[in-house]
Parts: sequence; C-alpha cells; structure tokens
Amino acid sequence: MRWSPSLTPCARRRAHAVADSGGAPGGARWVVDFADGSRELRDLLGGKGANVAEMTRVLGAERVPGGFTITTQACVAYMREQELPAGLLEEVADARARLEERAGRRLGDPADPLLVSVRSGARESMPGMLDTVLNLGLNDETVLGLAEHSGDERFAWDSYRRFVQMYGNVVIGIPGERFERAIAASKATRGVTLDTELDAAALRELTSEFKALYTFPDDPQEQLRGAIRAVFDSWQGERAIAYRRINRIPDEWGTAVNVQQMVFGNMGESSGSGVAFSRDELTGAPEPSGDFLPNAQGEDVVSGARTPRDIAELRDWLPDVHAQLLEILETLERHYGDMQDTEFTVQEGRLYMLQTRSAKRPAQAAVRFAVDAVAEGLLDREQAIATIDPSTLDALLHPTFDPSVEFEVIARGVAASPGAAKGEIVLSAEDAVRAAEEGREVILVRAFTEADDVAGFHAARGILTSEGGKASHAALVARGMGRPAVTGAGDVEIDLAAGTVRIGSRKLSAGERIAIDGSHGAITTDDVPLVEPDVSEHLQTVLSWCDRLRTLGVRANADTPADARKAIELGAEGIGLCRTEHMFLGERQPLMAAVIMARDDVAREAAIDRLRPLQEADFEEILRVLDGRPVTVRLLDPPLHEFLPDPSTLPEGTPERRRAEQLQEVNPMLGTRGVRLGLLFPALYAMQVRALFAAAARVPGSDVEVMVPLVAYERELELMRGLLERIAAEQGAAEFKLGTMIELPRACLQADRIAAEADFFSFGTNDLTQTALGFSRDDIEGRVLGRYIDLKILDRSPFETLDTPGVGQLIRMGAWLGRKTKPGLSLGVCGEHGGDPDSIDFLNSSGIDYVSCSPYRVPIARVAAAQAAIRAAA
Amino acid sequence: MRWSPSLTPCARRRAHAVADSGGAPGGARWVVDFADGSRELRDLLGGKGANVAEMTRVLGAERVPGGFTITTQACVAYMREQELPAGLLEEVADARARLEERAGRRLGDPADPLLVSVRSGARESMPGMLDTVLNLGLNDETVLGLAEHSGDERFAWDSYRRFVQMYGNVVIGIPGERFERAIAASKATRGVTLDTELDAAALRELTSEFKALYTFPDDPQEQLRGAIRAVFDSWQGERAIAYRRINRIPDEWGTAVNVQQMVFGNMGESSGSGVAFSRDELTGAPEPSGDFLPNAQGEDVVSGARTPRDIAELRDWLPDVHAQLLEILETLERHYGDMQDTEFTVQEGRLYMLQTRSAKRPAQAAVRFAVDAVAEGLLDREQAIATIDPSTLDALLHPTFDPSVEFEVIARGVAASPGAAKGEIVLSAEDAVRAAEEGREVILVRAFTEADDVAGFHAARGILTSEGGKASHAALVARGMGRPAVTGAGDVEIDLAAGTVRIGSRKLSAGERIAIDGSHGAITTDDVPLVEPDVSEHLQTVLSWCDRLRTLGVRANADTPADARKAIELGAEGIGLCRTEHMFLGERQPLMAAVIMARDDVAREAAIDRLRPLQEADFEEILRVLDGRPVTVRLLDPPLHEFLPDPSTLPEGTPERRRAEQLQEVNPMLGTRGVRLGLLFPALYAMQVRALFAAAARVPGSDVEVMVPLVAYERELELMRGLLERIAAEQGAAEFKLGTMIELPRACLQADRIAAEADFFSFGTNDLTQTALGFSRDDIEGRVLGRYIDLKILDRSPFETLDTPGVGQLIRMGAWLGRKTKPGLSLGVCGEHGGDPDSIDFLNSSGIDYVSCSPYRVPIARVAAAQAAIRAAA
Repeated sequence: MRWSPSLTPCARRRAHAVADSGGAPGGARWVVDFADGSRELRDLLGGKGANVAEMTRVLGAERVPGGFTITTQACVAYMREQELPAGLLEEVADARARLEERAGRRLGDPADPLLVSVRSGARESMPGMLDTVLNLGLNDETVLGLAEHSGDERFAWDSYRRFVQMYGNVVIGIPGERFERAIAASKATRGVTLDTELDAAALRELTSEFKALYTFPDDPQEQLRGAIRAVFDSWQGERAIAYRRINRIPDEWGTAVNVQQMVFGNMGESSGSGVAFSRDELTGAPEPSGDFLPNAQGEDVVSGARTPRDIAELRDWLPDVHAQLLEILETLERHYGDMQDTEFTVQEGRLYMLQTRSAKRPAQAAVRFAVDAVAEGLLDREQAIATIDPSTLDALLHPTFDPSVEFEVIARGVAASPGAAKGEIVLSAEDAVRAAEEGREVILVRAFTEADDVAGFHAARGILTSEGGKASHAALVARGMGRPAVTGAGDVEIDLAAGTVRIGSRKLSAGERIAIDGSHGAITTDDVPLVEPDVSEHLQTVLSWCDRLRTLGVRANADTPADARKAIELGAEGIGLCRTEHMFLGERQPLMAAVIMARDDVAREAAIDRLRPLQEADFEEILRVLDGRPVTVRLLDPPLHEFLPDPSTLPEGTPERRRAEQLQEVNPMLGTRGVRLGLLFPALYAMQVRALFAAAARVPGSDVEVMVPLVAYERELELMRGLLERIAAEQGAAEFKLGTMIELPRACLQADRIAAEADFFSFGTNDLTQTALGFSRDDIEGRVLGRYIDLKILDRSPFETLDTPGVGQLIRMGAWLGRKTKPGLSLGVCGEHGGDPDSIDFLNSSGIDYVSCSPYRVPIARVAAAQAAIRAAA
Repeated sequence: MRWSPSLTPCARRRAHAVADSGGAPGGARWVVDFADGSRELRDLLGGKGANVAEMTRVLGAERVPGGFTITTQACVAYMREQELPAGLLEEVADARARLEERAGRRLGDPADPLLVSVRSGARESMPGMLDTVLNLGLNDETVLGLAEHSGDERFAWDSYRRFVQMYGNVVIGIPGERFERAIAASKATRGVTLDTELDAAALRELTSEFKALYTFPDDPQEQLRGAIRAVFDSWQGERAIAYRRINRIPDEWGTAVNVQQMVFGNMGESSGSGVAFSRDELTGAPEPSGDFLPNAQGEDVVSGARTPRDIAELRDWLPDVHAQLLEILETLERHYGDMQDTEFTVQEGRLYMLQTRSAKRPAQAAVRFAVDAVAEGLLDREQAIATIDPSTLDALLHPTFDPSVEFEVIARGVAASPGAAKGEIVLSAEDAVRAAEEGREVILVRAFTEADDVAGFHAARGILTSEGGKASHAALVARGMGRPAVTGAGDVEIDLAAGTVRIGSRKLSAGERIAIDGSHGAITTDDVPLVEPDVSEHLQTVLSWCDRLRTLGVRANADTPADARKAIELGAEGIGLCRTEHMFLGERQPLMAAVIMARDDVAREAAIDRLRPLQEADFEEILRVLDGRPVTVRLLDPPLHEFLPDPSTLPEGTPERRRAEQLQEVNPMLGTRGVRLGLLFPALYAMQVRALFAAAARVPGSDVEVMVPLVAYERELELMRGLLERIAAEQGAAEFKLGTMIELPRACLQADRIAAEADFFSFGTNDLTQTALGFSRDDIEGRVLGRYIDLKILDRSPFETLDTPGVGQLIRMGAWLGRKTKPGLSLGVCGEHGGDPDSIDFLNSSGIDYVSCSPYRVPIARVAAAQAAIRAAA
C-alpha cells in the first residue's frame, strides 16, 4: 500500500551490494552497520534498522547515534536452530569494535563506558510488542565511570537502576511489578511521590535490591548476548504472535536487532526525549506535532506513565533544538516523500534523532496530507494517492456526535483517534471480548493500555484511558484500527477492585453507558445521537483524483431507496446488486410465506399478485434515486424456508406443518434457491420481472439489468431469457438486459457457454468462496477459522480477502471464457470482496469492469481501484 | 456401447453418397428408398429404416417387402415448423411411384390395391412408444379388389376393419376402447368368443360401425399424409417423452417414418407372424428362440393379447419356413456380428423379414453370447466385450430364491426377466410409484403393460403379468431395466375394481406380499429367502478378458470385513475407500458422542481411548481379508453432529443440550468435517492412525494408505503428515502412505501444491459434484432434479453420471496439476461415479489409475474399463 520512491542508480548499487553480501545464510553476514544500510533493505534490517541507516545518510552521523543492525535473517536462523547462528557473535564483536572506535568509548570501560540500547525492529512496526533493553554496558564498575564522566551521580545510578530493572524484566523474565513495588516502597520510605525525587543513594540502594532478584551478569559482553537473545525470543512471545495474527504479519519474517550507542534524555533539565510528527498526526494539517518530556528517556514518553508536553512548548524551552527539529522533520519528509513519525532525544542541549518512519495516521490525516502534499509539490497525485491506506478510510465515515445536540461533557482528554462511540463501560480487555461475543457495545476504560489489551480494542466500540498522549500505546493502536479513542483523561480514575470509574464528579459502574468523541477528546454520559459524517472536502478532492485515475468501476450493493441514496452520495456509479429478497422481509413476510405455502397454483398466483404492487413501488423508488444510473436487480435468491416459520411452531399433523417440514433443507446453501426456485415457481420470477419492467416504464431513462442468481447451466439462463422475452412482449417493453451471477465453480468453468445467453456477468464472490473452498460461512467463521489462522493454514478469512489461488483462479477463468464468447461482456463483482483493497487489486488485474460493495465501502473501493490502476501502470 | 464393424470401401462410398445428397435440410431430400439405405445411416433413417435397408441388401429384395423411409430430418423440420416440410410430399409421391412399379400394384387401385404399413423408427428403439398404421390403402372400393385378388373375403374385410380401427385410433385419436366395445358387442351378438370367429359379414358391419365414429378419408393419398403426420406427432406424445426421459434419448433426434408394402400374416392357416432371436433371448444359449402366432399380424404377437407359440413349433407347422428362418438368422447375426432380434411374417407359406436389430438382452444372455461368439470365431474378444452393456450386469448379481428352501409355487408364467423379487402387490403404476416413495417394496401386477406403466417398472421390485410372452412389452422393458419379471401367467386374474388378484387358487388383496422368480417363471406367497448369486462361469470368462484388456484399476468401497470379502470375490484389486465413520455407528455411537460432548481434553482423551481397541480390531480384520492388497483408509469425515442426538431431545438448559445445539450447523456439508474436524480435535485422528498402524503391524504384508478428507489447503495435509510422522516414530513404524481426497474445487485448482504433500490422490466425485454445481444431493434430487430433466437442463442426475464439463474438467485439472508436481502420483476416484460406465469412459481418458465403487458394481466397472480401453486404443 505504501508508495516506494524510485532509487537513484547510486543508492540502488549500494543497496544491492549490501543485500548480496549480507544477511543471506549462504553469504553468512549477519550484521550490517548503520553506515552501510539504507531504507531499501527493510526486509533484511527491519523498519527501524533501515530507517536509522537511511537517516544517518541523510542527516549525517552527528545527528544519529552510531550502531549496527543484526539482520532478520539471523533471527530466522535462530528460530530454526534454537541457538544463535554460527558466526553471529564474531560479527557482533567486529561491529562493536567499529562502534567503539567511532564513539571513542569502549563497552565496559570503567573510566568512560560506552552504553548501548538493544532494540527490536521488524519489517512492519509492531509498537510495544517486542523487547528493548536500554543502558546496556553498566555494572558496578562502569556506573562509577559514567557518574564521573557525566558529572552526574544521580543520572548514572538512575541509568543503572533502569538497566538492571529492564534486563531483569526483559531478559530474565522477572515480573515488572516486583521492581515497581520496590520503587514504590523506596518512595514511601523517603516520603516522596515522583521517581525523579529519588536521589543517587536511593537509586543505588534500589539497584542493589533489584540485583538481589536475579543473577545479574556484570560482563557487558554477556549482557549483550543476553539482550540479543531476548529480542529474538520476544518475536515468539504470545503477545507478539497475537499482534501478528491481527495485523497479518507472517511469523516467518523475524525481527532484526538494533544495537545503538545510548544518548541520554535524562541528564537533567537541558535533556529530554520526545516524539515528533512532520505534520499534525491527527488531522494531517501542515504543522509538526508531537510530545516530549524533559529529563526523561524515550520509554517514558511512549509508556504514557507521565503525561508529556506538546512539542510546541519545546520552542520556549530549547528554541535552537526546536528549530533544528523542524528543519530535520522537513528534510526527512521531503526525503521520504511521506509524513514522518520520529523519535528524538536531547542530551544536554544537543539533538539526536533516534528513529524515523512513515507516520501511521488516521484516515483524515492521510487524506489531508495527500491533498497538501500535491499542493506543495512534494508529491504528484499518483504518489499522493499511494500514501493512503484505503482500508482506514471508513473511519472517516464513522459516526460523530450530532452537532446540533447539546450535551454535558463530564471530562476531557486527548483526542487520540477520531470518531464517536457509545457503549457500556468495561474495565478489562477480557470483559470487552466477552461483551462483544454477546453482541453488546462497550467502551474499554483503562488507566493505560499495553500489548495484552489489543484484543479488547477489537471488541470495543471505543477506548478511554486516563494516561498517555497522542503517541501512547492506546492512541497508536486505536488509530491503527479505526477505533475512536480519548486518552490521558486525568479526571478519570479507575477502581478495578470495586469495578467502578470516577469520571469528573460522576461515579459510574462497569455496565453503565458512556459516550466518547475521539475527534475532540470529550466524554459524556448523555445519550448523544451519533450522525453519519459528510465526506470532507479533502476526501472529495482525493476521491475525484482517484476517479480520474482508476479504470475499475465502483457500484454499490443497495436494496432500499435509503441505501441507494447513501451509495450515490458516496460516489457509487450505480447499483451492482439490488437483493430483492430483502423486500420480502419484515411486514411482508406473511405475504411471501403465503406464496410458498400455497396448496395449488391458483392460490399461489393470488398470493403473488398481492406482492406485485409492493415490489413495483420498491423498484420505482430505487430507479428514481438512481436517475439513469445502472441498477442490477437480482431475482429472488434465498432458500424457500427462509421465509417460513420454524415447523416446530406449527400444529402437528397439519398440512402447513407438513409443507414447512418438507421445505426444510439439509444444506440450504446448496439447495432450492436462486434460479432453481425461479424454475420451480416461474410465477414468482415472472411477477418480479413484470414489476420491474412496469416500474422502469414509469421512470424515463431507467437502466435496468435483470440478474439471475445461482446459474450452473447455460440452459437455466436460456429459459429465463424466454420468460423475460414473453413479459417484455406482453408489456411492450423494447429491450432488456439479462445477466447472471457467476457464483458456482461450474459456472466459471462453463462461462463460455453461459455467456452466449448473458448480457453481463457478476461474480458472486461470497458464494463462490463457499463452494470453491467447501466453507459454509455461517459454520466455519466461528469454529474453524480461528484454529486455521493459529495453524497458519490461513492468514485471514477468505470471506474478507479473496482466496486468489482458488476463487481468484475461477474468476479469471470465468472472465476469460465469458469474453471468449462475447468480447464486450460486462463483468462485475458483487460480494464483500468488492470493498476489500487487496481483492480489488487482484480484480483490477483480472479484467473485471466494476466492483460493487456496501455503500460505506464505496470510497475505499474508489481509492483502492485508483491505487490498483497506478500499480498496474507502473 | 455397441460395436460398429468397419464398412467395406464400397459400402462406405454408397452410404456417404446418400448422406451427402439426402436428408440435410440444405440438400432437401427427405425420402430414401430401402434399396438406397444402409445401417450406417441410422441417424438419418432411424434404426428400423437403416436395418430394413441393410437387410434388403443382405437377404435380397424378395425376402424384404419394398418401401422407403422418410428421414428423421423431416421429423425435425416438422417439429420446428409444425407443418410437413416443403418438398416432402412430392418426394413421397415419387418414392411411392417407384414402390408401385416394383410391387406391380398401385395404391388405391380398385382391382389389386397396393397396401402399405406406416411405421415409426427412431435412432434408438422405443418399443411400443410410437405409432404405427397397417393396411393403409384400403377403402370401400379397394377392399373389394383385395377380396377378389386374394380370394379371401374375410381376410379383406378383417384387414379393412383393422385399418379403419388403427387409423381412427392413431391418426384421429378415437379412444381404442370404443372400437374394442363394438367388437365385443359383435361377438356377443353372434355368440362367439374369438375375433377369428367373426366372419366377413360381421367384419364388414364392424367396419361400417367404425367409420361412423369419425370422418374416414377414402383417398389413399390422404390416408398416407395423415399417417405420416400421426407418426411425427407421436414423437411428441406424452408417453414417448416419458420414455425418452427414462432412457435418456434426446428429444431433438426425431423419428423416421417407414412406408413398406404390406405382407399378410392373417391370410389363413399357412400365414402367420412372429419374432425370432438368433439365440435364446434370455440365456444367450446358441439356439434361436422366439414366438409366433399363426394367422395373425405382427401386432398381435407383440401386444400379448394372444399367447403365442414357441418358435420351435414352427418346424412342425411349416418346416421349409423354419429352415429358411434359421438360415436367415444365422446370416444376419454373422453380418451384424451381434445377436439379432427379428420380426417376420409368413404370407401363404412365403417368409418375409420385416425387421432386424441387435437384440436387447438380459446380462446373462449378453455374457453368454460374448463367450460363445468368441468360441465360434464370430467375434474377437474386443468385439465381444463391446456387445455387452455393462450397466445391465448387476442384474446377474441380483438375488435369486434360496435354492435350498422349498416353497409352494402357486402359479407359473413366462420367465421373462431374470432375478427374484419380493414385495407387496400393487395393481397400478401410480400405486407402485407412491409405494416406492414411501420406501415400500412392491411387485407390480397387471394383465399386460403398456407405455404408461413404465414409471411403475422403475418403482417396483418385480413385474408380474397375466398375458404376453418373452417379447411382450412387459418382458422387454423389465429386461432393459434389470427388473425380474414373470409374464403370461394365465392363472393370474386381476379384479381392478375390487383391488384383488386371484393367483391359482389364492385370492390376494393389494398390499399382501408375493414373491416372483423371473429366471424360472415361478410365483409364490411363501417368504422365500433371497440369496446373492455366484458369478457365472461365462461372466468369469468375460471378466478375465476384461482384466487383461483394461488399464484402469478397479477397487471397491468397503467399510466392513463382510463388504471387503464381497469386494474381493467380485474381483476388486483392493479397497479404494474404507469409511471409518461407519465404524462408529450403531452400538458404538454413544462412545463417539462421548468424545464430542467431552467438557475438557482429559474427558475427551479418555473417551477416545475407549474407541481405540474397537477401531484397531476393525482394521485388523479388514487387513486380513485384503491379504496384502491395498486398503485406503479415510480418516473420520462427517460433521460432528451426525453422531449426536437431536438437541431438542435433551433437557433444556443443560450443558449437553447447549453443546449439542452449538454443534448444529446451517450447512453441514460445508461445515466442520473432514480434516477440519481432525485439526480441531487432533486426538481423534491420532487415535485412528495409531489403531491403523498397530493393526497393520499385526498383519504382515499389509498395504495401508491413510487418506485425509476435505483438504483445500496444502498446509492441512502438511500438518497431517506431521501427525503421522510422530505416530509412526512412536510406534516404530517404518513408513506410511499419506494421501488426500480431492473433493473441493480449490483442491483441484491447487493440486500441484497439495501433491507436494501427498503420496496419492483420490477424487471424491460425490462431494466435488456437490460443491462444483452447488447442488446438495440431499436437497436437490427430490425437488429440483425432476424439474430440471423436464426442462432439459439435465438429462440425468449428475450424481449418477459425472458432469464432465464442470466436475470432469476439475478432475482433469487436478490430475494434470498433481502429476506436474509428482509424475508418478497415484490417482483414484471413489464415489458412485466409479461404478458408472459412462463416467468410467471419461475417467479412463483422464489419466486416472483406478476407480473404486460399491462391491456389486465391481464387475460393471471391470467391463466398462475394458470397453474404455478398447475405445481408447481404436
């Protein structure tokens, strides 16, 4: 999905040289210095390693602390062999020696020790999922050297304390709370409340307490080996695996390990750490945004444990650093051609850049950036469109609070992820998951969130935290998933034991309802109506570019005039699937039941006659809304018994019960439905066609396409054509278009013959998936799918993204055979895959003319179709 | 199915000349003289027309009355345009003129009129389904000439009476009973009982009465036009359509019309009509057989209204004619290279052959003929095998009465179709159909049968008639269908009004049980046990030839040691499908239910452990029976809930009920079954594999193949291979074969990848048909299939004969892709298509190594496979 700018010839040569010589198990080079890497080597170096290397080249070595990357290939080898691959430690020793030379310090030097961070870095960012060790290289000796050299004893012991704590937690596996309890006890003893109030003596004592919890390795080489192993192991940790499932990251990728010289944001008041975005990370507006914390290490900012300050305040505090940072952000953004998300540290007034990456951003920021980037000449339209992840766009179409309604804001927090949501309060991820399974809407309320909470994000309608800013874990994950979130709401206090939350002056229990507005950071207990958003001007601009670029048409699946109106508003070019069975539910169900239960043809015809005017009115209204755009009307499809009462509710022994029982099917999906129904009861389809033709005659300029479902044999369609011809003649209709769903494997294989009878095809990918894979969606998604993803048989549901090897091959075969008979045959795809960006890319290259998806996915499809066209032209 | 001997170059040239110049609508020649036709022109001239022409060439014009054939193309044109095609009548007039010249008589000549028969004749014989008019050319004037010229006034008036009656019935549509009533009244008035006792005066009076029933056309030209139309119309008649449905004859073929000079079997005691077979039509023994009636026309023999005499009696009556007939039968059999079924008429001591065709024959006659024909040097083995219709062979494997049991024969009749059957008496075809729908076994008892009764033959276990011989309608149809039949049982008297039958001295009511033996003509009310037949020596001979000729392997589907024994006895080379789920039904069902209902893994493992010894014993016994032949064991396949009680029978609110409810599926066919089940509950498959390996270890030389059902993804099989490897290692098993059912469209499309994990494939054509066509067999066969055959969407069930365009294409794709990865991959087909001759022919040419079918179909598969190999080599 991400745009990859073309390389200069020079860069390409270097990248290839490194890729050829490094990392491959055959070549056995497991380590690459930052100075030798580049962003093209992301697969080998991970995202962080590749970007740090790139940044080193772009900004110069003085802005980026030195270091090296242990490749993802080394991790893969480690996973395979369950031990560090041969030669790795030697290469690490060589790279360390080069780093020591550049830094002018040595690891373990008691006088002036080099300290390093050891961080994970996978190909795709997995925020907070993999382990990190900071301040590595300290021991009882070197801490003294650090104190001496930095002239700051407290800093040295704070660093050492942090290292012993992290090493114990990350590498050895001591539960974090044991360290936290010791810190809390120390603060209580000394009568202080903040960590920063603990002095060097207290910290020395704490460090010594920590070391009593496990066997701490004094040797920095051993520390390094342990940390590398721990990072590799964290790739296989439960939470990392869970995250990869959700985000569809292959287990086989592995993570790289970045060993980087430490710089210190915790060296006093002219030091600090922060994150900075090259543009507003929420709105995409062209002003840098971000958070920082003075006298803190980077982990403090990200964890959300202290609420950070806005990046704008950096100007007052350290104006030079602020100016440098802005310049760097602009340089990086221009270099990458994309909005950047960076981490920085200020050590005693000097700015170091630790990381940069393309910013994950909510849809509205992505859209705003795309429009602005073109206006600024940063990107051309194709490039700008490529920066948008279309699957996030439906966040823009999420509900917001009705602006015309006044409501009481009981507390405020950070507007961390846009959109509004309502639901019952739940206080844990598990409760959220359980509630979702029961169909309840919930808001997950937490002090702060961590990796273990991710499943709860999926299950909840929205997220509310009392701590953390826009870069907190909760904010990042919520934006990534398109869930509304309010973070850092200081007026929210959670009592887990009691199961209550105090929000402002209210005390609420789990289960009570609240509403949050993630676009504005508001919290309320009022039942504010949610309204569907208008499409923003920026989005309209992007969509209009997309419409000019794409070749794939986009229609909508709409069964009612209201759906049809929404579809047109969101840019659908027509209705690709109007399901008439939805017109027979609700109040009309008894009429339809009478048709099916009729004892003879006379009674049946009478019941059908009562349905006709209703059907005709439906069609007429939809055709008026469509105003000349094409409407594909699918004749009745579902199994007969869907319209019937449960036979066990009817009196025993009655003809009604007997008939209802007869109509039950063992496998309704493969039973008496679609055209089979139409051929068993021709009067039903005849009524639908009569109603449709009559409605079309009353709406001038109507473009009606009659679609027959579940065709397997060309003769089925031939018979339907006969029916339509008779009705057209009877009504004096001039001409009509008749087509068919292609939703059975046989139809794909015999598409050349079926095409002889068809004016158009529409691939029904839902049913085609069910039949090609032998997967009943109703039965498989709950029980088998999860297990199959765990077992790595599938990486996602085939009902979400098209199974290209099976279903996709059938579609291409059907398209090819159909066009062999009729070169101009119109080919559509209806079914949920029509709104899935990955599927759209495949369909765009399969000769499909248009996709049809739910109205709210129409904008996604328009963008995805444009991206597919850009890729196809590349 | 039928062997077509190669033509001499001369015959081929003539045939082509006629085919090129005649019949094609473009060429517009609608009529072919017998002298110009030949058997190669069957499509154009129909079976009867082609054979009469061939016979004219072989036997000489003096043995075959002259005439001409109006082609099937003319019928097709008539059906299309609903009128006789342009030019037809002119061509008929020309042909008539040539016939008059040859015969030396003219149609309508008052002095010595030419009389003709007008008979239908389709490509495939449809006995009694299409209309025939005899004695055409008579009127009040010509009847006098006929009387004069023949010197037999009664004969002339009898012929005229018959013609007026047939014309009225067939061409005009007067119900036959009105004529029959008049005849009965005339006989009553005159105090006689037989038609032959009516004298000329009485017949003249009757003729006059008949003519009062409708406007009789005196003009022979008009008579001829009417009769031609009537034959064409009869092709479209209801009973003809019903017959074609059952026998899968395309409606589009049309029928030819044969106009032939009449010869008269009713010209006194040296005249007669009969049917003769070149060998015994029941057993195939090398003695001609047949029936004749003195002083009768051919229709009298076929209708069964008078019980005819055996052909052997002809020797005493007319020894010269008998000798000529035997010589002719031998000539024709040698010429056609097949057993012949002929019709003849003797007119005043002179023998005329009216028709010959390859004899429809029961399986045992077919087999006997094949063996004898090779011994006699008439055919070589390939040719002999080609004369057998393999689909009839299961009649040979039908039950017979237990020969060790004495029983009382209450009446005897003609042994018209072999095999024994028991059931309740039904007196109409409708009752038979209804009973079959209710699952009752019935014997259809009728005075005689006609076309309308054919549906009843399908529904009944056996047929019993009081009238008609071996060539009666009842006998022909029953033999064609492989239903046991006893015909012409004079001691059977039916009282339709009372719903009773007197058989011998017994009076039985509809619903009471009888048993018939169609091989010996016996009827009993005793409940004689039926026994499975041994395979006859002749059949063994044919099967041994087939085994040498065929390249396709034949295995059997067998789940029990008894099935396995039967399979080996019938020549199976191994078991291609051993369905383990059948081992968990009956008494063991509660054990299996305990596995599924288990609340936790511990309880589940315990339940599984109880199943293992049972499973192991099953496998061991089967492996002993197989004695080193391969056994393909399919791991558990069906949906979980098949083993569970109906949830509504469990107490509400209990965990059992909840679990049973959870396990219900919307579409079980596409749900949690096969390998999905195996991956959800690995302990279940592990138990099966352990039991199988342990059993194999105890039976030296076992050849075990483990088959995984419902695979869609190669990874599924990879995981199963891991499981098997673990168990093999645990048990110290040396090696194993692991394969998969290919029964989902995706598996066919991804067969190259799946093959990487598989040692063999077995195409599961039942499920592949269900998924490729979206047809649930349970739901579709009852409701949709009949309608689809009526609408000509299908000509038979796709579960009976493979849908080659869809399912067949998938199989070929799967075979090709599988072999692309593994050139030596073993490919089997299990499922009912494995025993269907048409499907076998397709599979033989699709690279399949073996088919596997039910034990009783193994002989059919062996013959069909040999025929397929012969065709493939041709």
